Amino acid sequence: MKDRPLILVTNDDGIHAKGLKELTEVMRLFGEVVVVVPEVAMSGMSSAITVDKPLRATKMKEEEGYTLFKCNGTPVDCVKIGFNHLLDRHPDFVVSGINHGSNSSISVVYSGTMGAAIEGCLHGVASMGFSLCDYAQDADFTRAKMVVARIFQAVAENGLPHFTCLNVNIPKGEVKGIEVCRQTSGKWVEELEKRTDPHQRDYYWLSGYFKNFEPDTAGTDMHALDNQYVSVVPVTVDMTCHETFQQMKNWRF
Amino acid sequence: MKDRPLILVTNDDGIHAKGLKELTEVMRLFGEVVVVVPEVAMSGMSSAITVDKPLRATKMKEEEGYTLFKCNGTPVDCVKIGFNHLLDRHPDFVVSGINHGSNSSISVVYSGTMGAAIEGCLHGVASMGFSLCDYAQDADFTRAKMVVARIFQAVAENGLPHFTCLNVNIPKGEVKGIEVCRQTSGKWVEELEKRTDPHQRDYYWLSGYFKNFEPDTAGTDMHALDNQYVSVVPVTVDMTCHETFQQMKNWRF
Repeated sequence: MKDRPLILVTNDDGIHAKGLKELTEVMRLFGEVVVVVPEVAMSGMSSAITVDKPLRATKMKEEEGYTLFKCNGTPVDCVKIGFNHLLDRHPDFVVSGINHGSNSSISVVYSGTMGAAIEGCLHGVASMGFSLCDYAQDADFTRAKMVVARIFQAVAENGLPHFTCLNVNIPKGEVKGIEVCRQTSGKWVEELEKRTDPHQRDYYWLSGYFKNFEPDTAGTDMHALDNQYVSVVPVTVDMTCHETFQQMKNWRF
Repeated sequence: MKDRPLILVTNDDGIHAKGLKELTEVMRLFGEVVVVVPEVAMSGMSSAITVDKPLRATKMKEEEGYTLFKCNGTPVDCVKIGFNHLLDRHPDFVVSGINHGSNSSISVVYSGTMGAAIEGCLHGVASMGFSLCDYAQDADFTRAKMVVARIFQAVAENGLPHFTCLNVNIPKGEVKGIEVCRQTSGKWVEELEKRTDPHQRDYYWLSGYFKNFEPDTAGTDMHALDNQYVSVVPVTVDMTCHETFQQMKNWRF
């Protein structure tokens, strides 16, 4: 088939993740797919880029309409190397995931899955990050794949504004519908667990739990997920707080 | 002096950076300072967190009103470990920098300096990231320090709204004034330089140049910097694109 869209697929769980295999399967229904993914897990890498070491990309597989590369960099590096060297033309979509675990609320800030989607939209391409609220390596992606297909088609039909991408989170288990949401306000608390090694030196593991500042507020992504709805948050790369911008005009420096 | 504010200082250029020493000097004029910084340079680390290895923090120096720790993690890890274990109370401010090099426009997305400031405001604390538009290791911070003092005082006086921090960029050379700005729209192009190693294998270095989409637009941070003004952009951690959110309500899934 000619004129099929070119889709750049990536993730932050690395080349061996089940969520990547499942996402690739869905995307191959809709277009020509080039996968460029980290060779190891890169969870929590946000929009990190590699500035201090050279990057490598290795072709691992090639068949009709599908090519797979692994890269020694971050999710954002994968997108950059895809755009600049591995793809023979500008892709029509960047699709990241399906992440094993939620990226709702402020987790969007830390997420490598969303770092890659944000990078795609910085390149002017319609981009989406998909996450399933199930951390299990062998999670069941059956419903998630149907959701991905529906949302991808809606984006293909409607397009996305410049510098805006989608953060899609899919509940574990039943899916009652799809809801366009805003990012929930909240924070992580007791974030680092202290332990002592056999040499009496302290060390710390990232841990903690999430505190939702607005647990009962309809229209937030976590409220949708709590009620078994898929949350779709449009994410902007313009981080200016325009309200504060107006207020600060009165400041005297 | 009692009741002096507690200031958590960090950076992404690491413990040996001149910009850290200069920032610490200024902050010690205003309060009790605890520095928690990466032991190595962590440029471009964005809001990355360390999930796959234990973190360590080592006290390197302690004198009246000043303590210095190094940490084996990212700038965000430094802030988290500071809040959760190293500080004996909640700090009043988080101040990050002074970065060697600009973090204007979309560089805010990749910046470890701003990752740390964003982390501070996620913890509900007034937070600022400072960057000098000079990459030199021995850059002259004389004017930058005066700017930091003035902006810090303005924040101490006015406060900052919840979930909003400041991205401050200081021009190299002459400083004509301080301007409250919004983030410039632009992108990086030709971002990766391809080379071939002695074994005929390709590798890539991050490089490229920045393309400003609105070079003549007053009120943007790069316009301010181009005219030798300090740019102050209020940055929000709510990444929802509220305009798109409204538009998407009409989408059919």
